[in-house]
Amino acid sequence: MDKTLQRFGVSIEASLLQQFDALIQSKGYSNRSEAIRDLIRDELVEAQWQNTDGTAVGTITLVYNHHQREMSDKLTELQHHYHDRIISVLHVHLDAHNCLEVLVVKGPKTDIRAIADRIGSTKGVKHCKFVMTTSGQDL
Amino acid sequence: MDKTLQRFGVSIEASLLQQFDALIQSKGYSNRSEAIRDLIRDELVEAQWQNTDGTAVGTITLVYNHHQREMSDKLTELQHHYHDRIISVLHVHLDAHNCLEVLVVKGPKTDIRAIADRIGSTKGVKHCKFVMTTSGQDL
Amino acid sequence: MDKTLQRFGVSIEASLLQQFDALIQSKGYSNRSEAIRDLIRDELVEAQWQNTDGTAVGTITLVYNHHQREMSDKLTELQHHYHDRIISVLHVHLDAHNCLEVLVVKGPKTDIRAIADRIGSTKGVKHCKFVMTTSGQDL
Amino acid sequence: MDKTLQRFGVSIEASLLQQFDALIQSKGYSNRSEAIRDLIRDELVEAQWQNTDGTAVGTITLVYNHHQREMSDKLTELQHHYHDRIISVLHVHLDAHNCLEVLVVKGPKTDIRAIADRIGSTKGVKHCKFVMTTSGQDL
Repeated sequence: MDKTLQRFGVSIEASLLQQFDALIQSKGYSNRSEAIRDLIRDELVEAQWQNTDGTAVGTITLVYNHHQREMSDKLTELQHHYHDRIISVLHVHLDAHNCLEVLVVKGPKTDIRAIADRIGSTKGVKHCKFVMTTSGQDL
Repeated sequence: MDKTLQRFGVSIEASLLQQFDALIQSKGYSNRSEAIRDLIRDELVEAQWQNTDGTAVGTITLVYNHHQREMSDKLTELQHHYHDRIISVLHVHLDAHNCLEVLVVKGPKTDIRAIADRIGSTKGVKHCKFVMTTSGQDL
Repeated sequence: MDKTLQRFGVSIEASLLQQFDALIQSKGYSNRSEAIRDLIRDELVEAQWQNTDGTAVGTITLVYNHHQREMSDKLTELQHHYHDRIISVLHVHLDAHNCLEVLVVKGPKTDIRAIADRIGSTKGVKHCKFVMTTSGQDL
Repeated sequence: MDKTLQRFGVSIEASLLQQFDALIQSKGYSNRSEAIRDLIRDELVEAQWQNTDGTAVGTITLVYNHHQREMSDKLTELQHHYHDRIISVLHVHLDAHNCLEVLVVKGPKTDIRAIADRIGSTKGVKHCKFVMTTSGQDL
């Protein structure tokens, strides 16, 4: 992969550039190039995900009630099928009843979606969101 | 508003630029500047919508069964309250039973969201999606 | 398609039901069944779109500067390729410079996405959003 | 909070119910009530987030190149300002260059968004996505 820095010019209306500069400053960007590269990478990640083939990286965020027995049974079943897709899990005790867990998953897109579906459908899981990201290798 | 064209440079890794060029070509862009300006405008429109104040422009797409009586009653009621927010309506007969309608709406964001909520909650409306766009004035 | 009404029971915690009732009342629903059916239809429409095959219905919302010449050339080109996918177009003059247009599109999903990509990439188009909806036939 | 189980009936067209049953079965749900409760909770979480006030829980997923020096400086600065909002961090080494990190964040919504903006705008961060979830307390 060619990491050589290149430079290209963008022509843009003054008023549009002014608004963009204000927005990226409020978000904490130190320069325009970085902000533009982020927009480009975001587009590429989204385009990769519209393509259903291939492998990918993502995170699954879930909040659940740990008193629910079914939860651990389902996770055991999931790990039986998909243990090589679940890289790591972070567990946070939100209060006496509620836990938040984030799973980092990597593998074929169909497997990753299946893991998210299975977890989301488990009794005791109150909320489940799936984020698609990138392996970072081409970005 | 200052429409003077300005030019700024973006430095970027060769491999990233190559992927971006391939993506925008497949989408039909004739040059990078236009693709970058679109990413910038999209960011600005999204930022405007996170801000809940102010007026805005949007479209509401709905599919409904026109045999449902409640529909027309509700639209009449909506127009009583919000008639000055609904600029125009396009109606398409999808088949013998189903209609698609698109409303172009403009006004305070709270009103626009209320219109979308009211329509979406009407019996007979099978699907309702709200798109936030821009008046185009600052972009 | 079987339109017979069926009835099924949902068991739910009292506090959750109370919050749901408050939310759907604020949105204007007259009863829970309609709100639940809307959630179900929304899920089904989303699932249909994850499947990339088949035909579909959608709307494309765009805001553009009508002084831009390229716009009309591109639309002509699009209609040459996809005229049988664009059912209807609604045009609104937002101000002296800006127009909003909504296209109702129907056809193979790949064609519909291609139309949205082509329009979004046209010089002069300031914002372009694609909404996927349903033909209503199975919902 | 009242955790008593209640039961309500939903009337629905046979064909719609059939499609819903097929969808939730493919996702792994063991019964309809659980699937309906998930749809309800999802709606409530989304409604909470449209309201910009109050505290909330979320996760921030980022992929970055760990050779980038600026990254650690920015995280130190963030922790100075927001250390009490960042509950926990999970770190995964994707390859020799790329790291994935997930931050679990909790606090006022404006702070949480600011943290996500700051991280996303840091040089070396290739992709950054923010997921809003729930403390689980009312769901």
